[in-house]
Amino acid sequence: MFELKIDDARYWKSCVDSIVSLVDEGTFNIAKEGVSLRAMDPSGISMVSFFIPNKAFSKYEVDKATAVGLNLENLKKILSSSRNDEHLLMKDGGNKLAIEFIGPHSKRRYKLPVLDLKKETADKEPKIAFESHVELRSDSLKEILKDANSLSTYIGFKTDKDAFMVLAKGEGGELEEEHLNNTEAIKKLDITKASSATFNLEYLQRIIDACPSESAVSLSLKTEEPIKINYKIGDAELAYYLAPYMES
Amino acid sequence: MFELKIDDARYWKSCVDSIVSLVDEGTFNIAKEGVSLRAMDPSGISMVSFFIPNKAFSKYEVDKATAVGLNLENLKKILSSSRNDEHLLMKDGGNKLAIEFIGPHSKRRYKLPVLDLKKETADKEPKIAFESHVELRSDSLKEILKDANSLSTYIGFKTDKDAFMVLAKGEGGELEEEHLNNTEAIKKLDITKASSATFNLEYLQRIIDACPSESAVSLSLKTEEPIKINYKIGDAELAYYLAPYMES
Amino acid sequence: MFELKIDDARYWKSCVDSIVSLVDEGTFNIAKEGVSLRAMDPSGISMVSFFIPNKAFSKYEVDKATAVGLNLENLKKILSSSRNDEHLLMKDGGNKLAIEFIGPHSKRRYKLPVLDLKKETADKEPKIAFESHVELRSDSLKEILKDANSLSTYIGFKTDKDAFMVLAKGEGGELEEEHLNNTEAIKKLDITKASSATFNLEYLQRIIDACPSESAVSLSLKTEEPIKINYKIGDAELAYYLAPYMES
Repeated sequence: MFELKIDDARYWKSCVDSIVSLVDEGTFNIAKEGVSLRAMDPSGISMVSFFIPNKAFSKYEVDKATAVGLNLENLKKILSSSRNDEHLLMKDGGNKLAIEFIGPHSKRRYKLPVLDLKKETADKEPKIAFESHVELRSDSLKEILKDANSLSTYIGFKTDKDAFMVLAKGEGGELEEEHLNNTEAIKKLDITKASSATFNLEYLQRIIDACPSESAVSLSLKTEEPIKINYKIGDAELAYYLAPYMES
Repeated sequence: MFELKIDDARYWKSCVDSIVSLVDEGTFNIAKEGVSLRAMDPSGISMVSFFIPNKAFSKYEVDKATAVGLNLENLKKILSSSRNDEHLLMKDGGNKLAIEFIGPHSKRRYKLPVLDLKKETADKEPKIAFESHVELRSDSLKEILKDANSLSTYIGFKTDKDAFMVLAKGEGGELEEEHLNNTEAIKKLDITKASSATFNLEYLQRIIDACPSESAVSLSLKTEEPIKINYKIGDAELAYYLAPYMES
Repeated sequence: MFELKIDDARYWKSCVDSIVSLVDEGTFNIAKEGVSLRAMDPSGISMVSFFIPNKAFSKYEVDKATAVGLNLENLKKILSSSRNDEHLLMKDGGNKLAIEFIGPHSKRRYKLPVLDLKKETADKEPKIAFESHVELRSDSLKEILKDANSLSTYIGFKTDKDAFMVLAKGEGGELEEEHLNNTEAIKKLDITKASSATFNLEYLQRIIDACPSESAVSLSLKTEEPIKINYKIGDAELAYYLAPYMES
């Protein structure tokens, strides 16, 4: 049995958006310390790892850890109905998840079927000895991805002693973008070893899409290894992994 | 012969929008007391009944009642050109309707072919002894329809002594929404007998679409009978009927 | 060798937009006095002639006149990445054009392939003894084109002693629009002889699209001859020619 309450229904919507951008089904693990979800996207090239601590909820009653598998696309649609000033209540409803929006003068109760998605929970985060850490302003990273998108469906990231470089190349031309440390875009550069890798741009855009404006995103890189992307939405913590693109 | 003038061309556009959302052809009956139009939508499951009194016009000269059949989609396109500060003049032009936009420094004259659509005017409004009347804020009703739309293409309305309930059910889950009397959404509940019926959501959305923001919509219900929907756009009165959906 | 710098990267984007609306490839002629481009659209019914004087640049170094053929669609995509406060540098890069966006804290270098498009530069502007000149507010002309677009894919322009008339006719009705001299829409009317001609509406819309808001557009007309359309974007001068539509 569990009963979770969030004071701002729209905040929970942002959290779910950050997951559904990669995966359309997933299992929330509702435990004493908080709610987590880990899943591979259907193509298997990326992973999302989500955790929100119990302190983010105004009511958090969980008598034992429970796995709740959901169609996240449907959950997203339901959460899209959140209005200003609405609280959100999520309750165990047997083979359904009960979602209640509580406004000052009305109540809306949704029931969402619980799915059996055991295998989804088995994924572990990859262990990579990253060589470079780059912390960027989220809006700058969104612009960088857009720049590259005008030329290619892939983007190269490269770090050097004191710079973060972005590369893209297509029939329409080439892009080389240089961001120095301690600037508007770059909040922190921590380079143990110069690194470079190329990634699928669409996946990066989907990963970054839910990241709040004017916040920080951290990229961890190792040459030709998966990238790790971290950001927070309020108290919720997101970690994504994306496999590198190997030119053949 | 008739000559009708409206001081705000955009107001007449809103009136026509409320009709064209259901029917693409129709006959305006221009009579001494005002202009009316009644038509079934092509599928035959809904009807619109429109009336605007002569007092809504700054000039209203009608020597005898005239029927003017029009392609309403084309009329809508023409009215989309209305600009701020433009008056609108509609005049008899034989087999054409003359529409004149009169701005401070320019004139725009459109001529729209008059169609022969006699049968369209024969429809009578259905007579139903409604059991429940619900008056809602238009914006709340629009939100309610959107809520249901995330789950289904049908929506159930249900009234009880002191509540208006909304139900929707689909593969993605179930919705149950309760609105009590005297709240932000519900302006008036007048229940003779508890009623319930299910309707096509797309039709309801098209019907409500033209209803001005922050105004009142009234729903009249009887179990498994057509719903009647009323609202006003300024002085113009709209009544819609929509047949219930019978689950087979 | 050339090196051109513009202080506002977005301004150069507006200039390129005004060309790319008609042609997707073209050759910039970079000469002492400024940069010019002249091209027919692929269908051959319209021509654009662009010129921007050297004074529009904050740095303008050209040792000898150079022709730079470019895919303008690709150039447009690259320029879409311009951000506030960015300068733009364009440099000779052999068989590539180097484009550099220089922001307060970052640099973005694009390289765009240079194409061999010699024949494009051969077009001369047609010589027509125009009979009517109409100077309009750009926003009014945009509205006029939109009005006609609701009825037809063609638009007729007609001048008379003291009026500029717009005509459109389709299955959905007819439009006749009259603009008198010295009004909000018309800044100047200079009629040697009454003129009338009909034009493709889509081309006119593409031509006018890049014209800045609240500026002036000048139309030069002669009966059943091409129309000439002039406007400015800052210091840049645009002239377009569009062949008349001859009803068969």
